[in-house]
Amino acid sequence: MNAAVATHDLPWTREEFAARLKAFEPYYHIHHPFQRAMNEGRLSKQAVQGWVLNRFYYQTAIPNKDAALLANCPDREVRRRWIQRIIDHDGNDEVEGGIERWVRLGIAVGLNRDDIVSHRHVLPGVRFAVDAYVNFVRRASWQEGVASSLTELFAPSIHKERIAEWPKHYPWIENSGLDYFKGRVQEAHRDVQHGLGLTLDLFRTRAEQERALELLKFKLDILWTMLDAMTMAYVKNEPPYHCVEGFRQGMTAAEISGAIHV
Amino acid sequence: MNAAVATHDLPWTREEFAARLKAFEPYYHIHHPFQRAMNEGRLSKQAVQGWVLNRFYYQTAIPNKDAALLANCPDREVRRRWIQRIIDHDGNDEVEGGIERWVRLGIAVGLNRDDIVSHRHVLPGVRFAVDAYVNFVRRASWQEGVASSLTELFAPSIHKERIAEWPKHYPWIENSGLDYFKGRVQEAHRDVQHGLGLTLDLFRTRAEQERALELLKFKLDILWTMLDAMTMAYVKNEPPYHCVEGFRQGMTAAEISGAIHV
Repeated sequence: MNAAVATHDLPWTREEFAARLKAFEPYYHIHHPFQRAMNEGRLSKQAVQGWVLNRFYYQTAIPNKDAALLANCPDREVRRRWIQRIIDHDGNDEVEGGIERWVRLGIAVGLNRDDIVSHRHVLPGVRFAVDAYVNFVRRASWQEGVASSLTELFAPSIHKERIAEWPKHYPWIENSGLDYFKGRVQEAHRDVQHGLGLTLDLFRTRAEQERALELLKFKLDILWTMLDAMTMAYVKNEPPYHCVEGFRQGMTAAEISGAIHV
Repeated sequence: MNAAVATHDLPWTREEFAARLKAFEPYYHIHHPFQRAMNEGRLSKQAVQGWVLNRFYYQTAIPNKDAALLANCPDREVRRRWIQRIIDHDGNDEVEGGIERWVRLGIAVGLNRDDIVSHRHVLPGVRFAVDAYVNFVRRASWQEGVASSLTELFAPSIHKERIAEWPKHYPWIENSGLDYFKGRVQEAHRDVQHGLGLTLDLFRTRAEQERALELLKFKLDILWTMLDAMTMAYVKNEPPYHCVEGFRQGMTAAEISGAIHV
């Protein structure tokens, strides 16, 4: 290894490392064409509903992801704070929780509860992307799980944009449906202070810092890929099996085999 | 439960169950628009290369998937036969193996070995779909792993079609590149006899049979979703982050953060 490479391998300062993490903002899914169309009022009602249904699969996976992180974490101090994320989503006797608030968003955009909670309209591409996140955190170290959560750095702005833009563009959505976004502005801000601080503390060598950037990019890939699947299905009108005669979205495998066979 | 439902719940006969599994043929990815375009000579060279690069990620995951199945299987007779699938892909001192034959296909379509084996051009959506298959088999029973392999029922025809059509449409592809498909026609035929026989033996109640159909559908979803991601990237020219200024496919996270930051 020559001197130039050795210099290149010095760890970034805490400030530089934080700046490099924040430099991924242009890759956040707020800039995906689907998301841009949604926040500019250019999506059909069906596409907005499709987004709410598919994104709900992500919402319900987050407590499992956070529990997987706790399951791998021997540090009680970290667990004591991180557990709040599960409670924020699942709720308890005092608070409704983000998952139930998301169901209310679904009802506000004209869906019924069973269509939302059954996950029967979730696109395979969305399912695989979300599951990739949960499976990653199951098998990774808890420190890597923390770094992969840092897309929250960029989340408050996406929530604020929805709160501001949706009432203008989608007057048919009941205002109480936006409670999810309103609640998350504060929660995401608190969570990201914790996650960012931990990441800056835990990833110290240059190789570790570069690994943390890769993990943030991996998580950005997940969010972007979810919207790609929704773009194929609801914007380009090419959901899976769109060209297969007799197929309707939501058919069970038994129904498919019965319809073809006979 | 009334009499009508009880009757409905009787197991299908072995013949009916086999017919229902085979009834999924229209859902096989041979009918995906990307695959149809490929076999009709309507894909660009860049799209053919993209398919070879991305599909290679699937090829390399298959021995891991089959090893995960072996890891969960207490039946020595099943393991003795199933292990052949790993050897077919990985090769040994006597045989080259499917993975190396696929690398030769990559070289025949104009790629270099490092671009192929590094997986650096694999689309996130393809990665998540393939990983979903391996992760499923890791956590499922070995019997469920067997049922999910049954897309092989339809594989021989897709290989034969490529062997017949590609030389006409893509004369720039060296003929030896098609060795992978030629080798798989026979192997897939043998594998599917084993996998289908096991599935018909192992899934006996109506509920189990319907579960086997769901597993076949899950695997079809994986193959279809891989092609959806390739369609977005190579046909519609909207790969991930296509609209993000300064992004080039294959950039590392450190390069991205360096390019934006400063």
